[in-house]
Amino acid sequence: MANSRSGDSVLDRLVRVLGAFDGTKDSLSIAALARRADVPLATAYRLVADMVRHGLLSRDANGQVRPGLRLWELANRSSPAVDLRQAAIPFMDDVQSVVRQHTQLAILRDDEVLVIERLSSRGSVVNQAQIAGRMPVHRTSLGMVLLAFSPNHVQESYLNRHPDAVASADPVSFDFRRHLAQIRLRGYAAFDGRVDADTTGIAVPVLGPHGNAQAALGVVVPLGFESFQSVVPALMTAARGIARTMGSQPA
Amino acid sequence: MANSRSGDSVLDRLVRVLGAFDGTKDSLSIAALARRADVPLATAYRLVADMVRHGLLSRDANGQVRPGLRLWELANRSSPAVDLRQAAIPFMDDVQSVVRQHTQLAILRDDEVLVIERLSSRGSVVNQAQIAGRMPVHRTSLGMVLLAFSPNHVQESYLNRHPDAVASADPVSFDFRRHLAQIRLRGYAAFDGRVDADTTGIAVPVLGPHGNAQAALGVVVPLGFESFQSVVPALMTAARGIARTMGSQPA
Repeated sequence: MANSRSGDSVLDRLVRVLGAFDGTKDSLSIAALARRADVPLATAYRLVADMVRHGLLSRDANGQVRPGLRLWELANRSSPAVDLRQAAIPFMDDVQSVVRQHTQLAILRDDEVLVIERLSSRGSVVNQAQIAGRMPVHRTSLGMVLLAFSPNHVQESYLNRHPDAVASADPVSFDFRRHLAQIRLRGYAAFDGRVDADTTGIAVPVLGPHGNAQAALGVVVPLGFESFQSVVPALMTAARGIARTMGSQPA
Repeated sequence: MANSRSGDSVLDRLVRVLGAFDGTKDSLSIAALARRADVPLATAYRLVADMVRHGLLSRDANGQVRPGLRLWELANRSSPAVDLRQAAIPFMDDVQSVVRQHTQLAILRDDEVLVIERLSSRGSVVNQAQIAGRMPVHRTSLGMVLLAFSPNHVQESYLNRHPDAVASADPVSFDFRRHLAQIRLRGYAAFDGRVDADTTGIAVPVLGPHGNAQAALGVVVPLGFESFQSVVPALMTAARGIARTMGSQPA
């Protein structure tokens, strides 16, 4: 396995090393890092030393490493993700003030939901979403709203690559494509307990210039949450504000 | 100038390319990037192409490049900066609800203030702080509180490297070291109009396990803000909450 990748560049290895931090563990030993990144151990030692020197990784007292502060700084300057979250935060804060549960913002990326921002109050319910973490599209309200407000060819290629999505469709609607059409018609997606049994996710699209979702805004509330009916208009209002701030004219 | 750096590794060049995005411009042409990063143009073209392929940079329709979404994702997973901001956000949100002005969180880094998080309401006053941006230590309340609650040797080496700080000290206290001692005694720093003429910055330390600041929490309010007196206790309460969440026992 080691030394198995031919034509491996420094950049390839660097990206695999950073990708080894998948959110399951905050810090890793160099041996674990080498294994996860599929880099020979000696190479990993050298590369990690160089990356630590540049602040791309940091090393703790036990010799474990994790992504460094300089990397965070470089990645968060002039980043499109930061533009989106900066536009969204005041409106997420408004939603948060009303709903007092997790409020989150996500985009569709490589057939997954990439979480850009999350505001939580103390006392919110359990929530699997991590910032910069990924969630499955067809098991989350965020993902379904992103897909429902995607161009047709994006939906079709997602379905081609994920036959399991069609199989797992909501038993009531039983047709995945019809389910997407319903979400598009209603303007929001609401799912009970697909990620956590005791919660409901509710999400609306942040529309871009062509009427497609450039992001999704959602909340996670306890199952049976009494103000459910007030959440959707609050989300829709906030999503229009975000779209306007991003320079898109809401439809 | 081009080709001038000897012993330059791919990693050195990569870090300089990312560092070229300093917050002044969101996207750069490859020529501008090569110039800012001090990398030969042909090398820059090759490196940018590789970085775009890995999502570390993204290229827009005009061929301009900027930091990519994949870089953001890699840097924000398992990052210590993200841990700090996640601990801080609910408390920053509390401060924001009370004060309704910019609320920001920063750390001391390479003799500068590195802004980790910022919450703004619509209608807040002007504010220079950018997320992942840097500000001078001795011209900001965040910086002064970070320095005042740093170990003595950190203060002394800062002063050795920045004789201008001593020269620019508040005319009332005129002694920079005494000024730091006063901030430490009071437990907060408040500055009028050093960054923007019409604003006041107020900041308190988020104390770590040894009584030093692991971060600073501050607000920027309009000059003559009527609730000035209520801001300090609100900040102190929130800072204790952040320290507790981070696992430090406030003194």
